[in-house]
Amino acid sequence: MTRIDDLPIRDELRGKTPYGAPQLDVPVRLNTNENPHPAPEALVRRIAERVADAARHLNRYPDRDARQLRAELAAYLTRTTGHPLTAERLWAANGSNEVLQQLLQAFGGPGRGAIGFDPSYSMHSLIARGTGTSWVSGPRTEDFGIDQDAAVAAIHAHRPAVVFVCSPNNPTGTAVSAGTVLALHDAAQAAARDERGALVVVDEAYAEFSHRPSLLPLIEGRPRLVITRTMSKAFGAAGLRLGYLAADAAVVDAVQLVRLPYHLSAVTQATALAALEFADTLLTYVEELKDERDRLVTELTAIGCEVTESDANFVQFGRFEDAAAVWRRLLDHGVLVRDNGVPGRLRVTTGTRAENDAFLDAVRAVTKEISQ
Amino acid sequence: MTRIDDLPIRDELRGKTPYGAPQLDVPVRLNTNENPHPAPEALVRRIAERVADAARHLNRYPDRDARQLRAELAAYLTRTTGHPLTAERLWAANGSNEVLQQLLQAFGGPGRGAIGFDPSYSMHSLIARGTGTSWVSGPRTEDFGIDQDAAVAAIHAHRPAVVFVCSPNNPTGTAVSAGTVLALHDAAQAAARDERGALVVVDEAYAEFSHRPSLLPLIEGRPRLVITRTMSKAFGAAGLRLGYLAADAAVVDAVQLVRLPYHLSAVTQATALAALEFADTLLTYVEELKDERDRLVTELTAIGCEVTESDANFVQFGRFEDAAAVWRRLLDHGVLVRDNGVPGRLRVTTGTRAENDAFLDAVRAVTKEISQ
Repeated sequence: MTRIDDLPIRDELRGKTPYGAPQLDVPVRLNTNENPHPAPEALVRRIAERVADAARHLNRYPDRDARQLRAELAAYLTRTTGHPLTAERLWAANGSNEVLQQLLQAFGGPGRGAIGFDPSYSMHSLIARGTGTSWVSGPRTEDFGIDQDAAVAAIHAHRPAVVFVCSPNNPTGTAVSAGTVLALHDAAQAAARDERGALVVVDEAYAEFSHRPSLLPLIEGRPRLVITRTMSKAFGAAGLRLGYLAADAAVVDAVQLVRLPYHLSAVTQATALAALEFADTLLTYVEELKDERDRLVTELTAIGCEVTESDANFVQFGRFEDAAAVWRRLLDHGVLVRDNGVPGRLRVTTGTRAENDAFLDAVRAVTKEISQ
Repeated sequence: MTRIDDLPIRDELRGKTPYGAPQLDVPVRLNTNENPHPAPEALVRRIAERVADAARHLNRYPDRDARQLRAELAAYLTRTTGHPLTAERLWAANGSNEVLQQLLQAFGGPGRGAIGFDPSYSMHSLIARGTGTSWVSGPRTEDFGIDQDAAVAAIHAHRPAVVFVCSPNNPTGTAVSAGTVLALHDAAQAAARDERGALVVVDEAYAEFSHRPSLLPLIEGRPRLVITRTMSKAFGAAGLRLGYLAADAAVVDAVQLVRLPYHLSAVTQATALAALEFADTLLTYVEELKDERDRLVTELTAIGCEVTESDANFVQFGRFEDAAAVWRRLLDHGVLVRDNGVPGRLRVTTGTRAENDAFLDAVRAVTKEISQ
């Protein structure tokens, strides 16, 4: 039998394993920050209808530039942030991972570096690796915020071509202030090896769940600042794989130089357009989830956990001597959470009220088991 | 206004334009090798049904490993080539472009080179560029075949990590013999800089239209030989963006190290599964198209064109002093074909009988105009 290492794969891939949380069949799955609300039946019908229309000319390539979808995404952001946007400033791809990959292909790559502030979304460094961009792990504070001075110093020390800021941050849930983003942006321009500056990517995958307004208006007058978003979380559409960005139109032009032609299928465009028609309904679920998220913070604190303030649809909690052991014990109780490798901490996704109750019961049981 | 070149894009992207044929609204569009048959209404209904089922849990991430889809694709290849395959040897992504990109991320990339034999599918070199893989354009004969000795010599001279063979070749339509593929494969292993050998990718996007059997059985006992396929052409599903590969299971393990997690959406998987249920019906359209393709070859020859032998769903024809001028004149007659930049030649996709008649009438008119 041939093994991977018998093949001429790149050296940096040797011995690696694919990224991904375990997909286990457990009663309560709170490990991948999915939205627990299934699509309402009216939306399911609308998706079927729009996909059927698209399927009638499935023999043709899709609109390569996804113009209608980008216009509707622009309208959604305009409506929810108050910041006016048009299709030329929007770009969409198969999940925000693909958006990030395209940004790194255009602005990162061999001979260039990127920085993120860890712990953060681990795909940032993995996509950097996949595009040949070197990676620097910048610092966070004890309470998982970004220390502006330390972060600015790291940018000046490493002079990255791309800076990643995840806000609200995954897996910690912490948001970053507009002031800090601006300081990092300005430092990145000042420190850039390229006279044309550096790109700053603000990953707002969880923006709709935040107590704070979106950082989107910061792109105005800053053509090197990019906001990325996803329909996976707030739209309850992780299965759709639709990520997008808002930025200066020149950034959209730039990613079009590296995007694979016709990257976004006709069925994906049709399904996303259907979901956008139901945005208002789906955002009412987000409001419920924010209440539930706040309840998780309160209850976990009452149980005696150390809880990180959350602006996302998940909560980081601890502190455990052996987080991996607690993860396994919770699994024994039928609850799957995420062990992101943050020492002493675990991450739980906000589920339905019943799922959250089951999770809280399991935490109570496990903390009792441990303390015995 | 900010222009692309004001931004810190990679130097090799400066001044480039995005890949893609013009998407023009013309009566007869024969420029992108689409299948002219719309999906039958029964398939449209089945797609809507399967997508609705998927949409009911769209809030969940899709099956990251697309197991059912890979199993059905393996069954399809087994049935149509007689070569037994299972899901472990199959991999699927958003179009064969993404499959090729994943292969180059794993086996090409910075410090490594790839070779193709031009004119061929131009995305091979573009995806190489996009992944930092250097590119060598190998030779073809006057009649657009591969000169085995010259190709082997080029492989020994350049020692590439990845060899691309497109068969039937786009845009010329010519197929490559099993003997030549084996010679290139063996040369690539002998010449490889890496002691673990080199990857040989046979792009069989148009295999179902060929007079010859698939090269798929060659993967047996050759873990560095990969066959890529697409549902865009034979399945009449260009809008679906579903490409796949068949190879040793170790190659599938390798691309999983670089694939973006959950790259294949639940709606894509559902739509592809529906189309696979209708494979037999769709293959009857392929038989009709093969007859029409052969008719195009006969009629174009009768008109006095120099026609390249075709095993694909398109035909390369010429020879024109000014192919770009002929392209524009055909467009004036309402027929859009492709100018691939092959000197003196154009490429026409096989359409419906009526579209092909309109195309042939236009060629007759244009050749008359030119000779006047």
